[in-house]
Amino acid sequence: MRADVVRGADARFIPLGGGVSRCVLANSPGLMTVEVRFEEGAVGAVHSHPHLQNTYVLRGRFRFTVGGEAVEVGPGDTLAFPEDVPHGTECLEAGALLDVFSPARADFL
Amino acid sequence: MRADVVRGADARFIPLGGGVSRCVLANSPGLMTVEVRFEEGAVGAVHSHPHLQNTYVLRGRFRFTVGGEAVEVGPGDTLAFPEDVPHGTECLEAGALLDVFSPARADFL
Repeated sequence: MRADVVRGADARFIPLGGGVSRCVLANSPGLMTVEVRFEEGAVGAVHSHPHLQNTYVLRGRFRFTVGGEAVEVGPGDTLAFPEDVPHGTECLEAGALLDVFSPARADFL
Repeated sequence: MRADVVRGADARFIPLGGGVSRCVLANSPGLMTVEVRFEEGAVGAVHSHPHLQNTYVLRGRFRFTVGGEAVEVGPGDTLAFPEDVPHGTECLEAGALLDVFSPARADFL
């Protein structure tokens, strides 16, 4: 069994436009880990999906909207999104989020 | 809908002995995010479980053993563990891991 490792230095980020880029760091059908990088002012538009999501703030500052409520978070803070809850974010200081999903977001592949 | 946020500054880490401490940052039956802190030299003994696991290295350096193979990782590196694969770690430089599980590790609650 070979360990399945993605080195941060080797991670290839896909530009999504508007100052946002994304890299899938680990993936199986039941669990996916994704790093998303934001430039200051970049926006992740409000959206929803049936996948469970946890988001850990690696760097920077973000204002999230979750179910219509605003919350500002920074490094080391964690958000949990239940299924189908509308959520979005605005990046207040350039940074990165670690998003994990169950099941995997097949639309990211 | 109130956003479910755990502030890093408020996270309460439970000492597990041997220089390891743990805090569950987000939890639902289908998805759990856990930060585990290690002092230098601390060991997470080889074990296995049926839960899917991804591990992101937040800080420090670690030597993992996965399915009998050794791999050394540092900040920004990600490991993916399939179900039931024996894995363990030794901390080479004090740091922290972000472990995510699906389903949740009920034994952590």
